[in-house]
Amino acid sequence: MRSYKIGVIKGDGIGPEIVDEAIKVLDAVASVEQINFDYEEFLLGGAAIDETGVPLPEETIQGVKKVDAVLFGAIGGPKWDTLERHLRPESGLLGLRKAMGTFANLRPATVYDELINASTLKPEVVKGVDIMVVRELTGGIYFGQPREYGEEKAYNTMVYTRPEVERIAKVAFEIAMKRDKRVCSVDKANVLEVSQFWRDIVEEVHRDYPEVELSHMYVDNAAMQLIRDPKQFDVILTGNIFGDILSDAASMLSGSIGLLPSASTGEGVGLFEPIHGSAPDIAGQGIANPIATIASASMMLRYALGEESAADRIDTAIKKALAEGYRTQDIAAFDAKEVVSTSEMGSIIADYA
Amino acid sequence: MRSYKIGVIKGDGIGPEIVDEAIKVLDAVASVEQINFDYEEFLLGGAAIDETGVPLPEETIQGVKKVDAVLFGAIGGPKWDTLERHLRPESGLLGLRKAMGTFANLRPATVYDELINASTLKPEVVKGVDIMVVRELTGGIYFGQPREYGEEKAYNTMVYTRPEVERIAKVAFEIAMKRDKRVCSVDKANVLEVSQFWRDIVEEVHRDYPEVELSHMYVDNAAMQLIRDPKQFDVILTGNIFGDILSDAASMLSGSIGLLPSASTGEGVGLFEPIHGSAPDIAGQGIANPIATIASASMMLRYALGEESAADRIDTAIKKALAEGYRTQDIAAFDAKEVVSTSEMGSIIADYA
Ligand SMILES: CC(C)[C@H](C(=O)O)[C@@H](O)C(=O)O
Ligand SMILES: CC(C)[C@H](C(=O)O)[C@@H](O)C(=O)O
Repeated sequence: MRSYKIGVIKGDGIGPEIVDEAIKVLDAVASVEQINFDYEEFLLGGAAIDETGVPLPEETIQGVKKVDAVLFGAIGGPKWDTLERHLRPESGLLGLRKAMGTFANLRPATVYDELINASTLKPEVVKGVDIMVVRELTGGIYFGQPREYGEEKAYNTMVYTRPEVERIAKVAFEIAMKRDKRVCSVDKANVLEVSQFWRDIVEEVHRDYPEVELSHMYVDNAAMQLIRDPKQFDVILTGNIFGDILSDAASMLSGSIGLLPSASTGEGVGLFEPIHGSAPDIAGQGIANPIATIASASMMLRYALGEESAADRIDTAIKKALAEGYRTQDIAAFDAKEVVSTSEMGSIIADYA
Repeated sequence: MRSYKIGVIKGDGIGPEIVDEAIKVLDAVASVEQINFDYEEFLLGGAAIDETGVPLPEETIQGVKKVDAVLFGAIGGPKWDTLERHLRPESGLLGLRKAMGTFANLRPATVYDELINASTLKPEVVKGVDIMVVRELTGGIYFGQPREYGEEKAYNTMVYTRPEVERIAKVAFEIAMKRDKRVCSVDKANVLEVSQFWRDIVEEVHRDYPEVELSHMYVDNAAMQLIRDPKQFDVILTGNIFGDILSDAASMLSGSIGLLPSASTGEGVGLFEPIHGSAPDIAGQGIANPIATIASASMMLRYALGEESAADRIDTAIKKALAEGYRTQDIAAFDAKEVVSTSEMGSIIADYA
């Protein structure tokens, strides 16, 4: 029996509800696939602030280094928005990413055929879209020094070093090799030195991947092309802030942010989380969509634990639940046979898995 | 007879063709409205490099200060892409914006009912969209110092000063007062100090505009909301790079980048240009769409010269040409009665104006 230690960070808002459903599904596949999961909970964000006074307790930093992978819900909420910047939930998340060294954020933007009508884009434009956004996650303007909030001015620094660009480019090319072998690197090299540097190093790394077709696109054009003709993309490689913007835009192709997972991998343990936030407005009502988190658990099985068969089971179960017409409230308008609660959706997918 | 001196920068690629059509239309309204236009041409971008060795000749910098407004086509092309950064066409454009002090870039994203099917978004999502993106144009990471391309790392600085944010916020609130009185300021204040600073000053300026409803949105969410529900926006206020990305995304709601104009105003003379680029691949074939440039000439009349009636004439003429089914090749697929050339489209709109 394979045994894994899973770090669990439930977080704030709908975080606990959706993570509970992902665990339900993990336990279901565990018994079929003869895997054993041990879960260990860690605090982050608002929940951590309330209990320990800081958004990223030392225990969490140390703890997540000793597990095989971390499953994470979401953090943040109005309750903590007025705190000083370094005490806010978001800074806990950024600190965790940095501490874990998860420099590669993989955000698939795929469209479920069953929910094709949920997209605000025309079905023929989004049908079959299958994009992997590879976003650099521990560098760029998010972490760049110097940074300052002054009386008369404020600034941040968008910086990339050679090794930072090399390693993320490698990740993108490796992923492309397993897909359609096309990488589109997005930057603003016509204006920014840091983007020209990015572009030049991506070109260098590309020499080791002659089978992969590399193109470059300016970020403004990329935002446009994602709307105009998203099917042109296979892998999109980009920096931290451009990736933040473009992956959110790409997620809208699917019509609902409640469906899409993400994986952050890098130097050590990986972090797996839905791309949506903590949605404090609907927390505790049992109406949140757990699918993005369940799909994140599937990514965790596939990318961190190598449990492909268990991951396939989950992906198939999600598709089946959607095909059968089960919908949480956020996607109730699209071909619903039955509108179900957060935990009902979790149970249905667990059943099918 | 009112008389105006118009600076004309044709630029590269399709620039000359489309600017010629805008002048044709200007001349048509001039005779009806009893206005006199004197045109003076200036060099910029590739054309300037070829003739003078630099993308922004001193004559252009001095000349555009002495006219009433500047009408501009587009610059750039593969021919000049391998030059050093400060010698490329783009750096000429950035230098011109800075030299003219055009800190406020107004980019309307509107949808022509006649072309509603050109959008990749569903008609019910984009019908009636009427967004004005107010983008800060002479600050932020585009111009921030220090900036460097080094051996082992490269960086740029995203910086805003208090007066820079104050004046652009004022522009946005003033425009909102003439529209639906709603401003959504877009930033990344949960991560960037410069964004928190931006947000705080926008709040301060807002105190002078109590009638305007102000909201704030993170840039990743804004990219998403533009796709999910664009009708929620009236005025979007944002910095240079976020505005670059979001205004291009917003332009796609209309289905074609060949339709949308922009105005850059500020300390002195204003600059009016289509939002699209120089499209070197189709230059010289007589198939470019001149509508965005003609609409930019209309913005020039309205915002720089106060010639509202002439501007209305042009806007109505564009709508009529589209309603009658005239289409350039880029929009030929959408309810065309007749596909026309660049200069035919110019003549038709001039006739109707
Ligand atoms: C919450 C925020 C700091 C975060 C980010 O900007 O990275 C979020 O938008 C994301 O994309 O995971
Ligand atoms: C050509 C380029 C420098 C320019 C910009 O980024 O401002 C363009 O994209 C625009 O939006 O006008």
